[in-house]
Amino acid sequence: MTLENKTPGCLMAAESAQCLEVFAKSVTQTVSGPIEMPNAIYTIARGSSDAAANILSYEFMRELGVPMTSLPPSVFSIGDGVAMAGCATLVISQSGASHDLVHSAEGAAKAGARVLALTNQENSAVEKVSDVTLPIDAGPELAVPATKSVVGAVAAGMALLSKLQPSYANRAQHAANAVGEMTLPHGQAAGLQAAFLRARHVYVIGRDTGYGAAHEVALKLKECCAIHAEAYSSSEVLHGPLQLATNPLMVLMLDTGLDDIQDSLDQAEARFRSVDCDVHRVRLSDLGGEAVTPAAAAAVLLAMLYPVILNTALALGLDPDMPETLSKVTKTT
Amino acid sequence: MTLENKTPGCLMAAESAQCLEVFAKSVTQTVSGPIEMPNAIYTIARGSSDAAANILSYEFMRELGVPMTSLPPSVFSIGDGVAMAGCATLVISQSGASHDLVHSAEGAAKAGARVLALTNQENSAVEKVSDVTLPIDAGPELAVPATKSVVGAVAAGMALLSKLQPSYANRAQHAANAVGEMTLPHGQAAGLQAAFLRARHVYVIGRDTGYGAAHEVALKLKECCAIHAEAYSSSEVLHGPLQLATNPLMVLMLDTGLDDIQDSLDQAEARFRSVDCDVHRVRLSDLGGEAVTPAAAAAVLLAMLYPVILNTALALGLDPDMPETLSKVTKTT
Repeated sequence: MTLENKTPGCLMAAESAQCLEVFAKSVTQTVSGPIEMPNAIYTIARGSSDAAANILSYEFMRELGVPMTSLPPSVFSIGDGVAMAGCATLVISQSGASHDLVHSAEGAAKAGARVLALTNQENSAVEKVSDVTLPIDAGPELAVPATKSVVGAVAAGMALLSKLQPSYANRAQHAANAVGEMTLPHGQAAGLQAAFLRARHVYVIGRDTGYGAAHEVALKLKECCAIHAEAYSSSEVLHGPLQLATNPLMVLMLDTGLDDIQDSLDQAEARFRSVDCDVHRVRLSDLGGEAVTPAAAAAVLLAMLYPVILNTALALGLDPDMPETLSKVTKTT
Repeated sequence: MTLENKTPGCLMAAESAQCLEVFAKSVTQTVSGPIEMPNAIYTIARGSSDAAANILSYEFMRELGVPMTSLPPSVFSIGDGVAMAGCATLVISQSGASHDLVHSAEGAAKAGARVLALTNQENSAVEKVSDVTLPIDAGPELAVPATKSVVGAVAAGMALLSKLQPSYANRAQHAANAVGEMTLPHGQAAGLQAAFLRARHVYVIGRDTGYGAAHEVALKLKECCAIHAEAYSSSEVLHGPLQLATNPLMVLMLDTGLDDIQDSLDQAEARFRSVDCDVHRVRLSDLGGEAVTPAAAAAVLLAMLYPVILNTALALGLDPDMPETLSKVTKTT
């Protein structure tokens, strides 16, 4: 098979089907050597990797009690950088080759940060400038839309968290086991696909790690299906963005099952239903198996939704393996 | 006049017309007492205030050389918080009354952060729990969509920056003078309004402080006009989100005039034009007057675009003063 005469979507189909297997493998990896506890962590990533970083930031903050926030790469790529003594930078990149991320990692190191990286391709430029690199270990990823490497990045981040907070390691191991018991596809898959095909405007809603997952789902709906989907937290969306619901609007709610977010999701769901939106709430618990940590739950929700997004794209006559306007590694000025 | 029988949009029209005057007043305010230089600054805000925080973060990082990033309020409102010794929190809120922001400010103070606040209403709950509060000083704001208080928040933030970095104060003063020389409306206003009326999908593109302004413009297009507009940085948008351009897509580019971002904006503009998008690039330099700092430029671009968004809403038969689904102060769970 060459890339020219392949079946549309076959790469994304094969790669996204490996998500849970990649998760279980990557989350249980052992990290050698000591890693000093940072005062703060700054994530540097773009696109789907940035969504993985967002998922991880909620989990890290909950477990470590230190701030973990997103730093725009432009601080180092077009600016002169910021002081980062005592801090760590977490760079996430499938290829590890994006020039601006390499530049940012170098800048963070010079600014005094310990540079931690999660990359899928070995011996990458990002790895070379990092103090510690954890492999995402997803195997080669050829489709333009990243799938298993995103789920794998969340898992690798959880392995890093297990190193920084050994009491978390048991829950990471438990997530690996529980994920093995879950069954895909999700029972709502056909209904979700029909809703995506009807939709012109989509809000993907989450909170905590589900908000990070919402970013990734919205991005994939744009990238694979050319559907205008936008991510919001369930709190933020009840301000100005709610007004978009005066148009036909599909609302996809990602529920990781975390107790603390149920009120917020319930409130948003009721509000969108009251203005006649097409509301779909997917719950991790629908997949069976035991409850897992919120970051693991977000990763599994992605694994569950990727095939739905792929099938929506195919129904629309699109080949998500090779979107017409995109390439796998984008050089950013 | 009562709110029931008023002319649609009259509040937003009157308030947005005061933007430049509010800017000039708020940016030159004197901040009394010493403020210790923090190791890092975390912004806590929602909606339009969060856009102002994003604008300010690029300016602060450039001038102070310390990280300034956005911390989700949920870290304190649904989580147990994070350690913030040596850091500052910048809370931005028009009303200063939102419960989750008050809770976050209290949490940050307990976590060891110095709490700085920018608020418009005096003696607010946020002010009570803050170490230092700078008034946005925009006067009463009655329309649901915030306008002059957003521009004023950027200005108050610049006044705070002048206190932390006295060498910046001259540039803040210069911005106040230069803004007085600028003339609104913008020459492209009618063309932009026509483009908004035709548009179903809009990307608002910026970089650096222009990216923060893009967030605010996209939010206002949703809130006032029910148009699905989404903000992107000119680097990020050339990855997956570009694929949305296979639909009819309006692209509004906000150019603050900063030299370092011209390549990035040029590249994005060329790319969107090559796939036949309806691209509009608005430049601060179009308004006449001298160049100002990037944060001031972003604030002026907002002042310039608010009337265009208002007129678009009115042409669509909407009353942006009182969007049907919204209220001025939202209680967030």
